[in-house]
Amino acid sequence: MTIILRAEPLTRDAFAPFGDVIEASGSDRFTINQGLAERFNDLARIDTASEQGQTNISIVRGAPQPLPVSLKLVERHPLGSQVFFPLQDRDWLIVVADAKDEPTPQSLRAFKARGRQGINFARNIWHHPLLAPAPFGEFLIIDRKGPGSNLEEHWFSEGERPILAE
Amino acid sequence: MTIILRAEPLTRDAFAPFGDVIEASGSDRFTINQGLAERFNDLARIDTASEQGQTNISIVRGAPQPLPVSLKLVERHPLGSQVFFPLQDRDWLIVVADAKDEPTPQSLRAFKARGRQGINFARNIWHHPLLAPAPFGEFLIIDRKGPGSNLEEHWFSEGERPILAE
Repeated sequence: MTIILRAEPLTRDAFAPFGDVIEASGSDRFTINQGLAERFNDLARIDTASEQGQTNISIVRGAPQPLPVSLKLVERHPLGSQVFFPLQDRDWLIVVADAKDEPTPQSLRAFKARGRQGINFARNIWHHPLLAPAPFGEFLIIDRKGPGSNLEEHWFSEGERPILAE
Repeated sequence: MTIILRAEPLTRDAFAPFGDVIEASGSDRFTINQGLAERFNDLARIDTASEQGQTNISIVRGAPQPLPVSLKLVERHPLGSQVFFPLQDRDWLIVVADAKDEPTPQSLRAFKARGRQGINFARNIWHHPLLAPAPFGEFLIIDRKGPGSNLEEHWFSEGERPILAE
């Protein structure tokens, strides 16, 4: 039986088991620059220093994947966290697995983020690769660079692939 | 005599003495996600680990400062680098001082960035606080959190304040 997945709204509480939601809201804010700016501070736990790792800044430009989309795989990064922050104000989708070791189609959850919401996947959280909005999406990525193997993939067999639908 | 400052275009070469330009261009790129995305990798030297520092992600929302603007001060961060990446596709302005120790009005340089260009101030580079575009600007900030004093300011006297003009 094919699993049909639908996205729930992205909130800090709902996403807490998987990492951080990065958005201009919440209580840890203060005024800076002689009153000319407001800073929403310390929005994510950046975890990139393991095994001589350093913080890496990149831009990813992704092709759109219109719904419904068949989810072929999830991946995780055993050595560090990974931020995706959208550079356009358009909704986008995030898929994670609520599973410690072996992800299953049943363990997937999907979130719909607004264009002003970024996320930080905690280390070792299984997630689908970027699902960019149409016509294309650019994201600022903050993750780890350094020695060691930082990517694991889990592919679903063709018969078990879940469908992410509207 | 009042110094009148005008912005030059932001390019990697021109900004190199002050840090990094973060943009989706340049040669260190590769295809990821089964061909669905392109990654412009390792765009800035993030320098946040000194003296038990960690990488800090914040959002700053700044009031606009229409030109001409009188530049009252510059600041620098002796313990870490600092990224500003715009979250709207509108030109914005950057002011730095080409001075090791004591910044002067004569040492200032201004750059006009496009809305898809972020920058990373290297540690200890004197710069003006954020000059946000109208009607307001939001920026993702990637800098250092941790023990120690990470802010120095240099205020210009009223008579010597440079003017940033169109």
